[in-house]
Parts: sequence; C-alpha cells; structure tokens
Amino acid sequence: MRRWNGWGDPAVSLDLAQRALTDLRERLGESTPPQDASLDDVVASVPASRLPPSAAVDVSPVTRVLHARGQSLPDWLALRFGRIGRVPDGVAFPESSGEVASLLDWARMHGVRVIPYGGGTSVVGHITPPAGVAEPILTISLTRMRRLLDLDDESRLATFEAGVIGPDLEAQLHARGYTLGHFPQSFEYSSLGGWIATRSSGQQSLGYGRIDDLFAGARIETPKGTLRICTVPASGAGIELRALILGSEGRIGVVTEASVHVQPLPARESFPAWFFPEWEGAQAAARDLVQCGAAFSMIRLANAAETFTTLRFSGGHRALALLDTYLRLRGARDARCLLLVGITGSAPATREAFDAARAIASRHRGIYAGTRIGNRWRDARFRSVYLRNTLWDCGYAVDTAETSVDWPYVGAMVRDVEDAAHRALGNEPLHAYSHLSHVYPQGSSVYSTFIFRVAPSYEENLGRWATLKRAVSEAILAGRGTISHQHGVGIDHEPYLIAEKGPLGLEAMRAIFREFDPQGIMNPGKLA
Amino acid sequence: MRRWNGWGDPAVSLDLAQRALTDLRERLGESTPPQDASLDDVVASVPASRLPPSAAVDVSPVTRVLHARGQSLPDWLALRFGRIGRVPDGVAFPESSGEVASLLDWARMHGVRVIPYGGGTSVVGHITPPAGVAEPILTISLTRMRRLLDLDDESRLATFEAGVIGPDLEAQLHARGYTLGHFPQSFEYSSLGGWIATRSSGQQSLGYGRIDDLFAGARIETPKGTLRICTVPASGAGIELRALILGSEGRIGVVTEASVHVQPLPARESFPAWFFPEWEGAQAAARDLVQCGAAFSMIRLANAAETFTTLRFSGGHRALALLDTYLRLRGARDARCLLLVGITGSAPATREAFDAARAIASRHRGIYAGTRIGNRWRDARFRSVYLRNTLWDCGYAVDTAETSVDWPYVGAMVRDVEDAAHRALGNEPLHAYSHLSHVYPQGSSVYSTFIFRVAPSYEENLGRWATLKRAVSEAILAGRGTISHQHGVGIDHEPYLIAEKGPLGLEAMRAIFREFDPQGIMNPGKLA
Repeated sequence: MRRWNGWGDPAVSLDLAQRALTDLRERLGESTPPQDASLDDVVASVPASRLPPSAAVDVSPVTRVLHARGQSLPDWLALRFGRIGRVPDGVAFPESSGEVASLLDWARMHGVRVIPYGGGTSVVGHITPPAGVAEPILTISLTRMRRLLDLDDESRLATFEAGVIGPDLEAQLHARGYTLGHFPQSFEYSSLGGWIATRSSGQQSLGYGRIDDLFAGARIETPKGTLRICTVPASGAGIELRALILGSEGRIGVVTEASVHVQPLPARESFPAWFFPEWEGAQAAARDLVQCGAAFSMIRLANAAETFTTLRFSGGHRALALLDTYLRLRGARDARCLLLVGITGSAPATREAFDAARAIASRHRGIYAGTRIGNRWRDARFRSVYLRNTLWDCGYAVDTAETSVDWPYVGAMVRDVEDAAHRALGNEPLHAYSHLSHVYPQGSSVYSTFIFRVAPSYEENLGRWATLKRAVSEAILAGRGTISHQHGVGIDHEPYLIAEKGPLGLEAMRAIFREFDPQGIMNPGKLA
Repeated sequence: MRRWNGWGDPAVSLDLAQRALTDLRERLGESTPPQDASLDDVVASVPASRLPPSAAVDVSPVTRVLHARGQSLPDWLALRFGRIGRVPDGVAFPESSGEVASLLDWARMHGVRVIPYGGGTSVVGHITPPAGVAEPILTISLTRMRRLLDLDDESRLATFEAGVIGPDLEAQLHARGYTLGHFPQSFEYSSLGGWIATRSSGQQSLGYGRIDDLFAGARIETPKGTLRICTVPASGAGIELRALILGSEGRIGVVTEASVHVQPLPARESFPAWFFPEWEGAQAAARDLVQCGAAFSMIRLANAAETFTTLRFSGGHRALALLDTYLRLRGARDARCLLLVGITGSAPATREAFDAARAIASRHRGIYAGTRIGNRWRDARFRSVYLRNTLWDCGYAVDTAETSVDWPYVGAMVRDVEDAAHRALGNEPLHAYSHLSHVYPQGSSVYSTFIFRVAPSYEENLGRWATLKRAVSEAILAGRGTISHQHGVGIDHEPYLIAEKGPLGLEAMRAIFREFDPQGIMNPGKLA
C-alpha cells in the first residue's frame, strides 16, 4: 500500500513537535490546508483510454491515475487539488525483457508513446505524461521484474532485473553478505532502473559511489532492438555505452536488467557528529575531510538554519536544550552548523578515518558531539521524508533545489539560492535552509529546502512554485552549478538544460535518442 | 629530437644483456635485421601536397613523413622498409583554440580531412592517414599548445592546453606541489588530449584513476563550433558530455583545453615485490589486494614467462642468481610470478597498505622480495620501452595485445591469448609472456607481449602481424574481454569493435560523430 497523493506507506506518519509547529507559524504565519480531492473524484475525471485493446495492458482508470504522477510539488498539487491533467492511457506490467520488447513493438506499430516507470518517485516529472502529446501513452511499469539474476562473488557483480526497488535489492544482497550501498532519500520505493536512467546519488555515495560508478552492465530494450552492455572492468574501446544510458531518462529504451558493483557488508559503520560555530570553518572542514582520502562514506554539513530546523523537527526538545548548554560551555554561542560524517569499512580503516576526522574538525573549531545524533539520523533516514505529509496537513508546502558546484563557489551558492528563493516569493514568507549532502574533492552538492504556506487555489500554488523554481534555477546557473546533481532533468529542469549543455551538447544527446528511437516513441517531452 | 622510425630519444639506447640475447636466440632462432630505409629515401618518395595553399600549414615532405605514423608494429614496418604509404598533405601547428577553429573552418570549406595529432604515440593507427581517403588530409599537431592555464587549489583542478605531454605536464604541476599521476608507458611523448581521446590508463591508475576519472572538463573545437564542458563535481543532468569525448578518437573534434583532477604530491611511495610459486595463488593475491581497498596505486603481476624474461632483460645476472638461491631457500623451486605493488599516500595509509599487502601475499604463499626490484622498475619505467629498438636491431620484432576481463575469466584469458599467438605463427617460433597491468575489484587487464623474428620482406612481416593480430583479437573476444583496455581502437581494432559494441551501440557512436561533424571531415577511417 502506498499513499496515492503523498509520500509512502499510509501506515507511517511522522508527528511534528509542537515547538517546531509554533516556530513555523511564527516564521510563516498561520495556515490551513485546502480540502484534498478524493481518489474517487480524480478517477472519475479520467477520460477513456485511447489505446488499442491489448491483454497485456491495464486500462482501468485507477491504475492509470496511480501511475500518472511522481513526487514533485506540481505532482502533489495536481493530486491534492484533483487537477491531475493528462494520465497514461494504460499501464503494462511485463515480467521479462521479452515482454518489454513485445510492448515496444506493439507501441511502435500502433503509434503509441511509451513512459518507462520504475518506482514513481521522480521529483522533476520524469514519468508524467506531458499535456501536449497527441498520441496515446502507455506506461510500462517494471514492478514485476525484481529478481536477483546472478551474483558473481569473484568480480563482486550482481545482476538484477531493473524493476527491483531499494529494500528488495538490499535484502537479496544482504542474504548473500553483500550491499550495493545506494541509499537515495527515495530508497523505499525507487528502482535500480530508475536510478540508472536518472543518474541517482545515494546518501553514502562518497563511500560506495554514485550510480554512475556502480553501474557495470545492462540489457536495454530499445525501439530498434536489444542493446546488451557486457561487463568488463575497464575499456579503451571507443565511447563508453554505459554513459549513454546513464541520464537518458527513458529516451533510449527500457533498462530491463542491470549489473552493479556490490561490496561485502562493512565490518564497522558509525556516524559521528561535530558542531561548528560558523559556516566558513565548517565548509573548510568538509573539504579537508573529503580531500584527505580516508574511509568516509558520507560527509553531510547543514547550515545553521537547517541545523536548527532539523533538530527542532526531530522533536528532541530536552536533548536540544542540553546540547545547547553543552555547546555554550564549549564556547560555541552563536549559529551552529552540524556536520555528520559516515565512517564505513574495516576496523583499522574506520579507526584511522575517525582520527583524521577529529583532527580536521578540531582544526576548524568543530566541537565533537558523539554518535547519538548520527545514529538517530541513520535510523530515520528514510522516515524524515514522511514529514512532508505532516507539513502539508498543517498547511505548509515543501520544495527543494539541488545542484553541485566547485569548492570556490559553494558558499556563495548556498547564500544565492536561499536569497533567490526569498526574493521570488515577495511578501509571502518562506523558510529556507541548506546542506551539503554530497561532497567531492572537487566541490560539493548544495541541497536547499523551502517551506511556505499552501495557498487556497491550485493556480496560486502552481504559480508560487513556478516563480520559485525559475528564480532558484537561474541562481544555480549563474553560480556555475549544474541544473541537477541528483534529481535529473525531467520536465521541470528541461528549460535550463541548454544553458548547461550548450546547443551542441544538447543536439548530441538528441542524436543519440534518435538513433535508438527514430520514431520518437520513448518518454515524450523529456530531455526533448 | 626523436627517432623517426623507432621509439623515443635517439640519445637513449638500452643494452640487451648477452644472456638475454642468447636465450632469445635459443627460443626463436638466429635473426638478422633487414636494412632500414633512410629518412631521405622515404621523404623523396612522398608525392606533392594536394592541399590548397595556406600560410598556416607546413607542406614540407619531411614534416609530413614525421607525422604520418605512430608506434604500432605496422607503423614500424612501414618506416623501416620505406613503405610509408599515405602521408598527410600538410601539418599545422596552431597556438590557440581560435587557430584550431580556423583550421577546421578552412578544412571544411576546402573539402579537406583532418587528423588531430597529440604525441604521435598511438599503437593502433589513430593518427595514420588511411589509404582509401580521396580528399587531401591535414594533420593538426597540438605540440605548441602546452601551457598550464589555471590551477584551482581548492577544487584541485588543473586546466592545460591539451597538447601538453607527460613530462611537461608533471613539471608544471610539481612546481606547484601537485601531480596528475597519469603515467602510461608512452608518458615521455603522449599528450593530455591524446590520453582523453583514446581513454588512456596510467601505470598507477589504481591510485590516481584512469583518464576517464581524471578528466573534468574541456574545450573542444568541432566542425560545428566550440563545445565547452564546464567543471562541476557531479551531475544528474542528462547524458554526461565528457563521456562522449572520452574514446572519440578525434572523430568529434580537437580537444584544445582540458581540466583534470590533480593531487598533492604523495608523502610516501614505495614499490615492494613478492614472488609467488604459481599463478593461481598470485592471481588470487592480486584480487584480494585490490578488493581490500587499501591505498595501493598499482598492482602488477607478471606470469612466470614474463618474470623470467624481464629479469633477464634487465640484465642483473648476478642479482638474478642470488634471487634464485634466496627463493629456493624459501621453498619456491619452480615457476615464479613477480607481483609489484605500488603503495602511495600518507604515512599511516601506506603503513596500513603495506601490512595488508604482506598479510594477503603470505596467505597465498608469496615470498617478500623487498623494494629493490620495484625501485628499479620505477626508475626504468619509461626506459624499458626503448628495448624495442634494441630488439629490432637484433632482428626481433615486438608486438603486444591487451584487454580486460572479469576475474572469473582472467586466468583463461592469459592462457588463451598466448596459445592463440603461438598457433597463429605456425612453425615460426614466438616468445609470449603476460602480466596483469591494471587490476580492479571487478577484474583485470591482461597485457601480453610477443617477440618473433623479423622476416626479410615487408609483406611477410605485415602478414605475420595481421595473422597474429586476428588470432589474438578473436581469442580476446571469445574470452569475454574488451578489444582494448588502454590502447584504443584506431585502425587495428576497428574490425572487432562491432562484436563488443553490437550494431546498435556502434551506430549510436556514429550518430554522435555525425552530429558534431556532419560532413565527416574528422579523423577519417577511425571508429568508422
């Protein structure tokens, strides 16, 4: 079971501490959520399917509604206000690569457009049927393709059917003593094929690698036939085909099987925390940590606003007061930035990494705060996203922006993105905070969260979102950032892609898509 | 100064120990080298340039001859026997990206084909004008574009003009306390742009990364205009443009500037050695080492034939006898495989890595042999390639083959490649030996060397090479290997590329080239 108009398991809900709610109301003003549309009403509004009849396709309105939208704020608005717009004309649930190939043939023959669907967790519109497409649309869900097909212990390669979602994938690997270590925020529902097609990054990608690094081979069903990318450790033979699949967002075909690098379950793992009195020192510590090359699997640095907010949200009021006292005693009176460090590996490697982290943090005036905060973060890592449901119920919308940028521009990016968001909403108050979620020797991602009141009307909310998105995206590009570090392009980032890739780069991408899909049946309107 | 028909600096020559020569004669039979053609004769044989006049282009026959061939065995045969074949109609030496762009415009307007030229060290024909091209050919040498343009200490990114060759690049970085750490065998002459276009791998790529990992951004002049790839630490925004340049072998345009990841010069580096009584244990040790994740920058394992041969070639007859005695005393009587391990990094990381290496080697019956052999290897790492000149002078030709393959198939690959080579030459004796030069958690490269007698005629030698190349390439593909781990495709591997990429994959590559170069003026006949 899954919420049809929000995040995740309906049995899971996260309470918001009263203090946190009071704080939000003080910042943003009181708010009342509009009445949600019912699933029945939305289903009733769906027009008849225009697909030719096929036993392999489910054309029931409820199935079509449940596969029409992802998890972006526009998606939520569409569902909550009952303004779902275009839905697919049918959904297929193939059980093999052969069945996927047959569906593509069928679509090609009948002039049908195809949207590959993994976990449905996109926050940029990857799986949304665009309004302007005249042809009938078939969504192909990989949900029935979840098996572990092969595990090569010697090469540490696991081959899965690409519809496997995070928990199923890890469970199958754990049973054999391995882990992929890919933990995006969407882990509970997102799929291997989706990670590959959108170039996903997990919270511990510093240790385990982004999906770009983990992806070793694949079978892809394309409109022109099957593309097999065999595994070899490294090659100098022309352009790397894996790179054409990574980030192709369904435009080349459907990834039906994928081989990934796995690792033995780590002997040790901990998440120690440090508090820094000011941002500059904290950022310098994050950079020194990642450049020192020790066995860190995560370096995650919240700015003062995010540190305050997430500690408030996590509800430990007394713990927070105690922490406050402790930090004051240690000399950190003012703004405080929380650095969480993931240390993962063998016993000697983790000891060495902890020593390195302690020395570097001290050098930048970091105050050690033990492993309790980090352990709580780890235990709640896939639950914190449920807070979005709770906030909506209190009348507050959440949106996020993310980018990555070289180190000299990281500090300015944090400021500029938050400033742009504030300016974009004009008189409507907005709460903005940021963290560095993925750091690299070269630079860092910047992940910003925006909370603001839900307006009474659909149009007003969508307008607010669009203004915010535009302002933030322009700030990202002006600050030398990528338009997306981990969410992908989809519909929402498409207008900004040309600024990043240049017209020549964009045309090259499209030439690749045309080659595999000359009739343009795959994922219409994406990367278009 | 550079040898026009062999490897490297004419002032450097490497003696072959008498024992080694005797050993070769016993294995392969006596041989006499044919008389070399003179440069004057070859230059005199070159037809007039068919390029339209341009002040920017050198059309002198000697310049054209000196830029016509690389370092493959067919290249050597062509030069040594005075059968140079097609040479470029002129060579340009631009000094800026703008000048490169102008040359491409000029070529396009005049129906001229263009070969980008970095260091001229290709061993697969990348820079060779193919016989079948009717149009005049302009070679663009980047030799005058060698400057360090920018060094970003915070992001550890260096931006160079792409014509910079290994020693110049490292000297400019060393002066600032950094290294790129990219040390291919061709280091003395090969260029940054060439490394990128051919997906080069350095001897210590385990620690520093292949050029694929080091390459962070670029400026490329293409027939359709300038493509700029800006640096960001990581991105999820569509297909990665860097991946389209890596391995494009000059078909997209000329890389004129490139940004690369650099690292501070390491605090410690050593190259300890172990001897193993048999291959299986040695290979298992190599795999365990790379999978243990310690700070190794190189893991290099020679089979028994290569160990014997290289120790013989290196001439330490007395040292070899001593070693022999030592190993016998330690219980290793028979075939012996030499494992060299590069340990590079901070003092604690290198201590830990050495301890890990010692424990793993012991577990597989490895006998520690100190750091002297490794230090000698390091000091001679770019000199050993000069042995090819010496062997030719003694009447022996050298060819190599390289691939990479997942761990379960590594052992069979070593055997099958050597067997295929022996079978290919029939009654003509051949000396074959192999090593694993680049190991990965997933598998290993396999690098095999073949020595055989130079025949009296050009045709016989070329036929011998072609038979050998075909047999070895087929064995590589049959054994699940890539057609090239580090040399690239060029002319020599082109027939086998379709087996690796599949027709769909190959067409996708060509679609990319067409997009940047619709008239097909770039590097004719390569990846075609």
